This record gives sequence, structure tokens and C-alpha cells, in this order.
Amino acid sequence: MTYRMDEMTWPQFAARKDKPVIVPIGSTEQHSQHLPMQTDATLAACIAEDLAQAVDGTVMPTLNYGYKSKPLSGGGPLFPGTIDMNGATVIAQMHDVLRELIDDGFTKIVVMNAHFENEAFIVEAIDLVTRETGGVATIIETNWWDPLTADVIDEVFAGDLEFPGWALEHAAVTETALMLHYAPELVHMDRIVYEEPVTPKPYVRYPVREGDVPAYGGLADPRGATAQAGRLMAEACVREVAAICAAEFA
Amino acid sequence: MTYRMDEMTWPQFAARKDKPVIVPIGSTEQHSQHLPMQTDATLAACIAEDLAQAVDGTVMPTLNYGYKSKPLSGGGPLFPGTIDMNGATVIAQMHDVLRELIDDGFTKIVVMNAHFENEAFIVEAIDLVTRETGGVATIIETNWWDPLTADVIDEVFAGDLEFPGWALEHAAVTETALMLHYAPELVHMDRIVYEEPVTPKPYVRYPVREGDVPAYGGLADPRGATAQAGRLMAEACVREVAAICAAEFA
Amino acid sequence: MTYRMDEMTWPQFAARKDKPVIVPIGSTEQHSQHLPMQTDATLAACIAEDLAQAVDGTVMPTLNYGYKSKPLSGGGPLFPGTIDMNGATVIAQMHDVLRELIDDGFTKIVVMNAHFENEAFIVEAIDLVTRETGGVATIIETNWWDPLTADVIDEVFAGDLEFPGWALEHAAVTETALMLHYAPELVHMDRIVYEEPVTPKPYVRYPVREGDVPAYGGLADPRGATAQAGRLMAEACVREVAAICAAEFA
Amino acid sequence: MTYRMDEMTWPQFAARKDKPVIVPIGSTEQHSQHLPMQTDATLAACIAEDLAQAVDGTVMPTLNYGYKSKPLSGGGPLFPGTIDMNGATVIAQMHDVLRELIDDGFTKIVVMNAHFENEAFIVEAIDLVTRETGGVATIIETNWWDPLTADVIDEVFAGDLEFPGWALEHAAVTETALMLHYAPELVHMDRIVYEEPVTPKPYVRYPVREGDVPAYGGLADPRGATAQAGRLMAEACVREVAAICAAEFA
Amino acid sequence: MTYRMDEMTWPQFAARKDKPVIVPIGSTEQHSQHLPMQTDATLAACIAEDLAQAVDGTVMPTLNYGYKSKPLSGGGPLFPGTIDMNGATVIAQMHDVLRELIDDGFTKIVVMNAHFENEAFIVEAIDLVTRETGGVATIIETNWWDPLTADVIDEVFAGDLEFPGWALEHAAVTETALMLHYAPELVHMDRIVYEEPVTPKPYVRYPVREGDVPAYGGLADPRGATAQAGRLMAEACVREVAAICAAEFA
Amino acid sequence: MTYRMDEMTWPQFAARKDKPVIVPIGSTEQHSQHLPMQTDATLAACIAEDLAQAVDGTVMPTLNYGYKSKPLSGGGPLFPGTIDMNGATVIAQMHDVLRELIDDGFTKIVVMNAHFENEAFIVEAIDLVTRETGGVATIIETNWWDPLTADVIDEVFAGDLEFPGWALEHAAVTETALMLHYAPELVHMDRIVYEEPVTPKPYVRYPVREGDVPAYGGLADPRGATAQAGRLMAEACVREVAAICAAEFA
Repeated sequence: MTYRMDEMTWPQFAARKDKPVIVPIGSTEQHSQHLPMQTDATLAACIAEDLAQAVDGTVMPTLNYGYKSKPLSGGGPLFPGTIDMNGATVIAQMHDVLRELIDDGFTKIVVMNAHFENEAFIVEAIDLVTRETGGVATIIETNWWDPLTADVIDEVFAGDLEFPGWALEHAAVTETALMLHYAPELVHMDRIVYEEPVTPKPYVRYPVREGDVPAYGGLADPRGATAQAGRLMAEACVREVAAICAAEFA
Repeated sequence: MTYRMDEMTWPQFAARKDKPVIVPIGSTEQHSQHLPMQTDATLAACIAEDLAQAVDGTVMPTLNYGYKSKPLSGGGPLFPGTIDMNGATVIAQMHDVLRELIDDGFTKIVVMNAHFENEAFIVEAIDLVTRETGGVATIIETNWWDPLTADVIDEVFAGDLEFPGWALEHAAVTETALMLHYAPELVHMDRIVYEEPVTPKPYVRYPVREGDVPAYGGLADPRGATAQAGRLMAEACVREVAAICAAEFA
Repeated sequence: MTYRMDEMTWPQFAARKDKPVIVPIGSTEQHSQHLPMQTDATLAACIAEDLAQAVDGTVMPTLNYGYKSKPLSGGGPLFPGTIDMNGATVIAQMHDVLRELIDDGFTKIVVMNAHFENEAFIVEAIDLVTRETGGVATIIETNWWDPLTADVIDEVFAGDLEFPGWALEHAAVTETALMLHYAPELVHMDRIVYEEPVTPKPYVRYPVREGDVPAYGGLADPRGATAQAGRLMAEACVREVAAICAAEFA
Repeated sequence: MTYRMDEMTWPQFAARKDKPVIVPIGSTEQHSQHLPMQTDATLAACIAEDLAQAVDGTVMPTLNYGYKSKPLSGGGPLFPGTIDMNGATVIAQMHDVLRELIDDGFTKIVVMNAHFENEAFIVEAIDLVTRETGGVATIIETNWWDPLTADVIDEVFAGDLEFPGWALEHAAVTETALMLHYAPELVHMDRIVYEEPVTPKPYVRYPVREGDVPAYGGLADPRGATAQAGRLMAEACVREVAAICAAEFA
Repeated sequence: MTYRMDEMTWPQFAARKDKPVIVPIGSTEQHSQHLPMQTDATLAACIAEDLAQAVDGTVMPTLNYGYKSKPLSGGGPLFPGTIDMNGATVIAQMHDVLRELIDDGFTKIVVMNAHFENEAFIVEAIDLVTRETGGVATIIETNWWDPLTADVIDEVFAGDLEFPGWALEHAAVTETALMLHYAPELVHMDRIVYEEPVTPKPYVRYPVREGDVPAYGGLADPRGATAQAGRLMAEACVREVAAICAAEFA
Repeated sequence: MTYRMDEMTWPQFAARKDKPVIVPIGSTEQHSQHLPMQTDATLAACIAEDLAQAVDGTVMPTLNYGYKSKPLSGGGPLFPGTIDMNGATVIAQMHDVLRELIDDGFTKIVVMNAHFENEAFIVEAIDLVTRETGGVATIIETNWWDPLTADVIDEVFAGDLEFPGWALEHAAVTETALMLHYAPELVHMDRIVYEEPVTPKPYVRYPVREGDVPAYGGLADPRGATAQAGRLMAEACVREVAAICAAEFA
């Protein structure tokens, strides 16, 4: 049995109207030397699919492009392959998908986000669609890292590893581990580059300049990532979000 | 070797700047009783990938959602699972992807469309981005069926089969054949429903009403579709578009 | 008695609320060497006026400017005098006119289009306004050529004339004939230029380049057009659309 | 010889690139019991055509729909037949026309407005297009009443007639006179209704309510209007704007 | 007791739902050599606060930026410090404030404007929000000068002073007088520059050029302005608008 | 001498083109029982003014309204007085102010934000304007809390006080302290309500429901706030941002 809406025929989908439906959104963005551009899209889609299995929900097709990558949290716009959508576009595409789901009768919706910079624009879309539709649907938005509890992070960064904070976890231990879990054939551990710790600045400065992000494309050390740690995070995230669904969709 | 940009790291993608880059766009739309909702997205992505191999190009991640499905050509908005984006959204998402590719230095771009209703809005995006960027990039847009020559259609509809015209070829012989070629595990030949020929109306009428499209979701008879016919069309399309690329990107 | 809304006073118009109302939309676009720029606008307005007489309807003022002219179907943007509106503008102007008519209580609306490139954007406007107003009005959209049956085309292209397909019928036999019927004083048969048949390409390419459309501005041979053929088409179109109105507005 | 662009072929228009081009914009709006809904559009178009003759310029097709009619100056939105465009639409349609003219090489542009409420939105379009194009074109905007000097008004309101101020001159003496001059067959002097003077309020109040404008649709007394007075104003307006063109386009 | 919403806590504001609420909007615009850039914002805010006291209403925070300054009425865009918002922005910001007030249950709203160029865009916002909310709120818009009666103007321009018309009253007697009344510490009477009378043109011309407004920034003579005249106008304006509120909000 | 642009005449402002210019943006939002709705706007404006003094810069008029208040970080939309602008509006107003400053020749710009929810939309505006203007201006964006170092927080939360994290610091110790420093007359320490600690949820859920934020409007305990702590934070913030300016504007 599939939980993927795009693999269903319409009568299959129509029969699942009362169950949760999950919209994954990622990005197309440079992920240093060892991870592919689809990292965020893959993580959003795979975790969403696991979640669908856990809650007997349905996963929608992935929104593969997201909001602009920022130096502080994602690598920045200067790398070829980072495809940045304008804020208005991110709002519009999420709005339309949510609106159509609600018009089709779905009222239990989860947006699973894997690209930090998307969040404010996703939530704007959720707010707009909620106003338009009188709030008939309950819409949850979360990022895969938000529900992770401290003990999970501790386990992922066991031994000598040090958690540099989420702001720097771009193409670093957590994303690498999750990709090793979900799509190991796309991870090039042999190409890992790491130079030195980056200190996030307490401000934003435009224009972005070369050097704002190290030239190889990473912010923190990805070494030490394992598929096992990826699985741990994936399972923890799914477990937590399933619990949120149980509470909010009751 | 992969031709999929989303499987590449950024240095791999950056190295391909002088080659063609292909943007597939599909839809999420009911496809009668036997085809999955991802039919258009799958066809756009798969043909794009074959084309990439033929021209040593690069396939971008697929835009999985497209413009509103119309009764005359696609099944209409009344079926659950048909997720219709507004025209402005389709324009915006294509605009942003093209603009970023051009800003990254790519100048040979193909948009491979698999959902008829998308086309006007795709071309609007192409026009806008061409004006903004002074026409530095050559952008080709085609639908997978447009380059097919009459003899290919004749071969696909050999024997007793009758070509009902592209307007009715929604979830019918050609799409079913292509899906049998590319994703046979998602095609349910045993669930095929066909009632009677639909005659396309020479006008549009809103609001769309039940009955505008037969309740099962199809417009023409999909029986007789084969993977072989699908392969024939796929290869013909790729061959023709490769020739177009050769001529236009010279 | 007038059927033109713009010639009526408001009480005259208000009294016609229960009858059909017709919105003509054309374009301002080069039409080769022998037809004026208003060709599309004139045809939309004149056919709409004949239709109004046939169905006791009311013709609204013409939208004189339309969507961008494309090489494949209209002559392209490179000719002075082709005034191309953006897609968003075409949607907005049609939306506002339809919305106001519905707010004024009209529920039987026909949009008569004479410029192929307008259609997707007109239909987007119709879809948007239908959603906003809960579908209280029945809105029909058609292009003057769509309702023409094969026998009419055969009669227009009798003798040696060959129908090149609608894609090439820009400033060619059908438009010239209709202009000879409705506005002969604006047709310069003595200035007709025709070079050689153009083959429509199975793709779109931007930027448009000189040569994509023959430098004189036409795509097919307009010779052989007669006022009589124009009248034939006009009457056939009106007859068919009147029948559509009878069926849909019943 | 015609000065109307819509009656020209494209080579005729292209040859006039160095001359002034005039864009008329009106409205579709109730004009009391005796004037047709096209009053503003007709006046804009006719005065523009006279002006074109005076300055050897070219008149563009008329924008027949304009901004929302306000009670203080135009009759208000409550009358059937008043077709109100949103501000964004008025800006967009004027923007696109101006932009295309400039891209076609025209640099001497006059916008002739006949509907007071349009003005702010027209000027916004002019400002936007001026910024986009670096100010290469000189664009003049005027309303037909603005250039009229006091002595012209005095002559129009000679004898017992009293000028109520432009704010109330909706469907009153000046518009009626101009329509008697340009389109007498559309003026119904026998249906004139006039009740009592309206005093314009020093504020705007929404929602507009019945009674904000007298139920018959007028604001001031149209009696005493003559074709001669209309001609006087038309000629004076053309003379003044021709002088403005001479000064600004030198 | 404060009438300023921004100085209240939310329970204080919530308790005033049935009373009038006033939204001041000004601009940030050059005001010649002797007045500060905040002149319009200050006048809008101060008169709004006096009005709030008169009608037991509540003043919202001021919208400090407004629509583009025009040469005919405000000084023009060429002076540093004139911060011009696009029309769409002025509409949007006013729309959002009004919509939120109405959603919070306020139904008696006054928009107090102090920058002429804002008005059309403010009224567009009022119209849009009225349509969206079904007209549940009564919204009044006025400019501080509109309710002033002739005798007030006569008194302000007593003696040798001559009223040049509102079009030229930018940084001239009335604004200077009002600023002397409300914020004398920001008025530099010793820096007053006045050259010669400007005659407003009966048309708009773009691009704006140096010299369209005298280089010092004023249009008419501010000499003779007194705090007493400012107080007279402020009190008259408040008295009139209070009467309007009494009539319209009854 | 003033550092406030709104108190300057235009020649004063024009003379400061080479110095930093600071744009404060706040919000109009409930701030529990003891702080006024202007809290964010006041803090943005006051810190900006101190910063202007420190770097010999100029403070622009404050943008008094901001993006939607969220339960997780600001109190939520259900409280009267929280005036939420749409994301598009926040982008537009910041875009227009920045664009005009750059067009006026300013190239050293700081955006001082005091409302967390604004940030993504401010940065979108900065990105858009940077692309439009080719990056001629260096634009810094910061929130007053971002540059505060750990030792400052430690000192503010000395003794028994506990720092609950920035997400809960809405109307709590830091904002109360800063308001006691800058506008003590608007702080009602006697009205402080505090119930129990709120735990921020690792997800967003719409529609917002009563109870998502405690009914009194706060998230954490404001008791223990002092003017001295406010001054400490203000001075630290100014010192840090002045250093950032020195580094980035060099």
C-alpha cells in the first residue's frame, strides 16, 4: 500500500479525506561538497512519508523549490545550484496547495518543512488560507528539527562531536546523517570538506559577498555523521509529530 | 553518471553551465481510474531525463504542481486530488526558477511541459524573464506531444485504435502508454473504465458542473495502450527535441 | 434600437439584467500589410453585436488591448503597433468587468474573444470570478473561430484555396474576409503581401528573433478572401453561439 | 488620411514614431438619464482625435473602462452600468500600453483622460513606466477640462447658467454640450432630469449608500447645454494641449 | 487620560470598541527650507489627537510614509528626503490597518489625511476593505483642509495675505501656521525662502525635471503664518469633523 | 542638534548623505497588561536614535505597523489592538523606503527591528532592493536583542531572575526594562500579571485558538525588570551595532 498521493488514483485519494494529509516542502540549494542539491527536498519527502505511515496519512507531492538561501542558515545565494524563489512565490505555491486540499474536504493538514528559510512564508500562506476558509481546517507546520528533544541531539552528538547549534547545521552532522539514512547513494563521505568553525553573525548584511560562507559551501563539521544517527532523528521526529497530530486532530 | 541536478553536488552542477538545462513541469491531477495523480509530473521528469542524456544536459527538479485542470483538456477541477494552482502562481514559480538559472550563468534552457493547461502561463514566465534579462538566454518550451510527427501517432494508433485528438488524450492511449513505459507499477490496466466518446465543446463554460467530464474521470478510450507505444513516443519526442536543441543552441 | 451598452443610458441597461450580456475582447496587433491594427477588436465587437441582436442581448464596450502576440499564432512582438499586455493585466481587466456585471445582477455572460493568445488569461479571470461569486453567473467564453463547423471552413476555402490551419490564419483568408464583411474601408487588398508558406514550429523559443515571422507580417496567403465568405463565417458563428446561449442559459 | 492607430496598418504606424501619440482613457459609467454610458470614452477618443489632427499625432485605441466612479465626482457605484475597475487594474493597463509604446520607440506621449477618478492611477502608471525606462519618453497627462481657461467656462455658462464647479459637472452642462457636439444622436435632451443642487461633501464616506447621489443619476443641471458650447470647449482644449505639446515635445 | 492607542494597553483599547477610531496618515516629504520632513505626519497625528478628544475617540499610530509627492501639489520627487511609496504600498498598508480594526470590532473609523497625494490610494483601500467586510463599518476619509469653511480661510489670509489655492499651499501659510501651533520648535521662520508665485500647470509631465518646483522647495509664500492662525484652522477642522462623526456614526 | 530625519529640513538631510541612515520598524501589538501597544515601535525608534548619535547617523521615521503577531513569539492575533499587516505589505513598505533612500544617494543603511515576526519580510525587501539597485548600498538588518552578548543577559537576569529564552520574552523582563528606560510613564508596573511559565511548542498550529497565549497576554514573568537593566541593554546594543557599522561601512 502506498501513502504517496502522487502514486494513487483519484478514488484512492478521495477515500482518505478524513485522514491527515502531509505537504512536504524542501529547497534546491547547495549542500557543500558531499551532499546533493535535493537534500532538503529529500528529507522533507522521506520524513513525510514515514509520518504518513505512522498516522495513516497521505503525503502530497513535494514542493521542490523554496525560499532564498541565507548565509546565516543555509549557504547563501552565491553558489550555482541554489535556486531561490521570491517570498511571494513561496507564499503563493503553498497557499494554492493548501486551498485546494481544503476545498477537496481535507481538514487535517501537516506541512513538513526541511528548509529553515521557508518557514515565515509558509506560515503566511497558512494564515492567509485560514482567514479565507474560516478556519475549517487544522493546519500544523513544523520543521523536522523542531520536535527533536535534547536527548536525541545528545545521542547524535555523542562522543567527541559537538552540536554547533541549528543555525550552522547546514550540510553538517544532522543533514548528512539523515541523508545517510534515507539516500546513502547520494552522500559522498569521501568528498567531505571542513575548514574551521563559522561564527554566526548577529545581523544580516546585504549584498551577500564571497566569503560570507566558506567557499566550499559548509558551515560546520559533518564528520561523524552516521546512518544510525539519521535513523534516530527520523524516528524521533516522526514519533513526536505523530503525537502532535494525535493531540491536534483529535 | 547522473543527469539529475538534484542528485548532484553544487560543484558538479556548476561545471555544467555551458550545457543545456531542462526544467520539467507537470501537474497533480486526476487521471481517471487507472493512472496515478503524478502522471504529468512523471512524464515531464522522465522525458526530461532521457533528453538530458541525449543532449548531455541537466534536469532540474520537477515542478510537481501546475495550472488548473480544465474539462476540455484535463479532467476538470471537480475531482479530489486535482490540485489547481492559480495562473499567477504558475507564472511566478517558473519565473523564479528560470531567473535563477540565468543568474547562475545558464543560457541554454528547455522547459519540458506535460500538462497542456500550463503552457500559456509558462510562456508568460519565459517572456517576463527574457525581458528582464535582456534575452541573454535561449529558452525553448515544448509539450511532449508537440514534436511527435504524424507517423509516430499513426504507429501508436495502429490497428483498430483511433486517435481522438490531443484535446481528449487525457488518461487515454498516449498517457497510459507512456506510463506503461516509464512507471508500469503505477498503471492499473485492470481498473480501466471507458464509457463513451466525449465530444469536445467549442466553448468554455463556468462554473464547471458535474457531468462536464464523465464521472469516472476519462475522456477517451485508453485500451490498447502498450509500453512499446510509450517507448516509441518517448524516443521520438527526445529525438525531435534534441534536434531542436542542436539547431537553437548552436 | 441599440444593443450596445455604451450607447444606452443606465436605466436602459438596468432593464436588460435578465438577458445575456456579451463582453468583446480583441487586441491591438500588427495584421500584415493590408489589415489595420484593430482587426481583432473590430471582429470581436462586430460579431458580439450581431450575436446580441440574435439573442436579444447587450454588448459591452470592447477591451481593445489583449495579451502578447506570439509568433506561432499572431505575428509576434517585434512589429511596431503590437501592443502587448502582460498576462496579469489581461486577467485583471477581464476580472473586473465580469465582477461588476455580476454585482449588477447579470447572470448570463458571454465573452467573445478574437485574439487567440487572450484565451488562457480570460479563462483564468472567469475561474477567479466564479470562485469569488460562488458561481451565481453562467459565463461562456468562445473564440469566433471555435464554433465554425467543417462545412463552413470548406465553403470559405472553396476552389483552389487551402486552409492552412488556425495557427497560421493571422491576417490571412478568414480575418481578411471578416474584415471585408464588417469594415471593408479598412482593408487594403492592393497592399496584400504573401511570400511563402510558414510552417509552425512544434515549440516556442525566446527571445523572439527577426525572421520568426516573415518581415511583412503575415503567416499565410490572404488572397481569395471575400466579403461573402466573411459574412458566411459571421453568420455561422452567431448562429452557433446563439444555440449555445439557448442551451446554457435556459 | 486617418490619425487613428487602430485604422492603420503597422507600417503606417511605424512611420509615425517621431510624432506625438495620444492614449485616450474614459470609463463605462452611468451618466444620468440623458447621456450614454460611453460618454467619457467618447469624449476622450474624440478630443484625442481632434488633437491628433492638430499636432499631426496618432490616436491609440481607447481604454474604455476606468477607475471606480465616486459619488463626489461621478455618480457612484450603485447604478447598474457603472463598471468599476480596481486601482491596480487601471494602473496595469495604462502601464502596459505606455511601456509598449516606449519600447516601440515613441517618445512623445499624451494621455487624454475624460474620467476624473482615473487620474491618480494613470499618473502612478506614468511614474512607474518612467522609472523603468529611465525617462526616455516625455509623457503628458491631462484631463479635457484642465486646460480650459476661465473665459471659455464663462462663455459656456453665459446668460442664466451657473457653473457649479467641476466636482458636480457629471452629466451636466459641459459633458452634455460636448456630447451634443461629438455624438448628438446619443443625447436624449428630452429625458433630462434635474432635481435640485447637490452640495459636495468635504469628506468621503463608505459604504456608499442610496441617496448619496440623487436616484436619477445627476449632480447638477444639464439644461442649457448646446452643441456650440461643446464645440467651443473641444476646440479650446485641443488648442491648449497642442500648445503644451509644442512646448514640451520641442 | 490618553487618546493615543499606542500609549494604551490592550484592555484599554478593547474597552473603546464602540467609539470612533482615527487613523492618521501623513508623508515624509520635503517642506521647503523652514519646515521639517515630518510636517504632514505631525499635522495628521496632532489633528487626529484633538479630534479624538472631541469625539471621545482613539487615535491609531501614524502611517508616517505616504504616496509620491507631485510637483503640482507637494514638491516633487527630486528633493532628498521625499520618500515616495508606490501606490500599491499605500493601498496595502491602509487596507491592512482598516481590516484589522474591523476584525477587532471597530465600526466607526475616520482616516485623517494630511498629504493630498495619498487620497486616491486611501480611498481605494477603503473601497476594497468595505467590499471584503460587507460594509459593516462606516469609514470616513477627510483631509484636514477639506472641512475648512470659507470664513476660516478668510481669517487665516486676513490683511495683505492672499490665498493661492490649496494646490500651492505646500509648506506655505497654512501648513506653516499649523506647525507653529503644534510643533513650533521645528519651524524655522528665519530660514523662510520665497521667490515668486508658481502657476500650477493644467497638466502633468513626466519625467519630473529640475525647475518644475523652485529649487528651494516651496510653491507659495509662507510669510504671515502665525500659531494663532494654525490654532484657528485646527479647531475649525476638529469642530467640523466632529460634526461629521456625529452625523455619520449616529 | 537632532538626529531625527523627520525633524530636519530637506537641506539638512541632504547634507548627511554619506553618513549611516537608520530605519526603525516596530509593530502595533498587545503587550500584556502593563505595557503599551507601541512598545516595539518605541524601542525601535529610541534605540535607533541612540545609535544615530553614536555613529553620527540619521534616524528615519518609524514604521509603526509590522507583520502578524504569532503566538510563539508575540502574543497572537486574537487580542484587540494587535494590528497585523500581511507579509506582502511589510515587504512593500520596507522596499519602498529603502529604494527611495538609495535613489537619494544613501549607501549605508541600518534597519533596526524590534518585532521578531518582521524579520523574514524585512530581509526579503532588502534582498529585492539589493537586486534592483545592483547592490550599491550596504544594508544591515538587526534586531535589538541579537547583538546582546551573554554577559549582558546574565546581568539583566541577575539574582533570582531566569532568562526564559527570547521566544518568550514578549512583554517580559527585557521589553519591560527597556520601556522603563525609554518611556517609564507608559509602563504600569502595578498592573503586571503573570500566571505560569509557558512552554513554547515545537510547531505552529492554525487557526490560533484562545488559550494558545494566556488570556492576559504575556508569556513569561516581567517582574524584576528595572530601568537600569533597560539602559544596560540599550547601551550594549548601540555599542555593538556601532561596531558593526564601523566594520561594514568602512
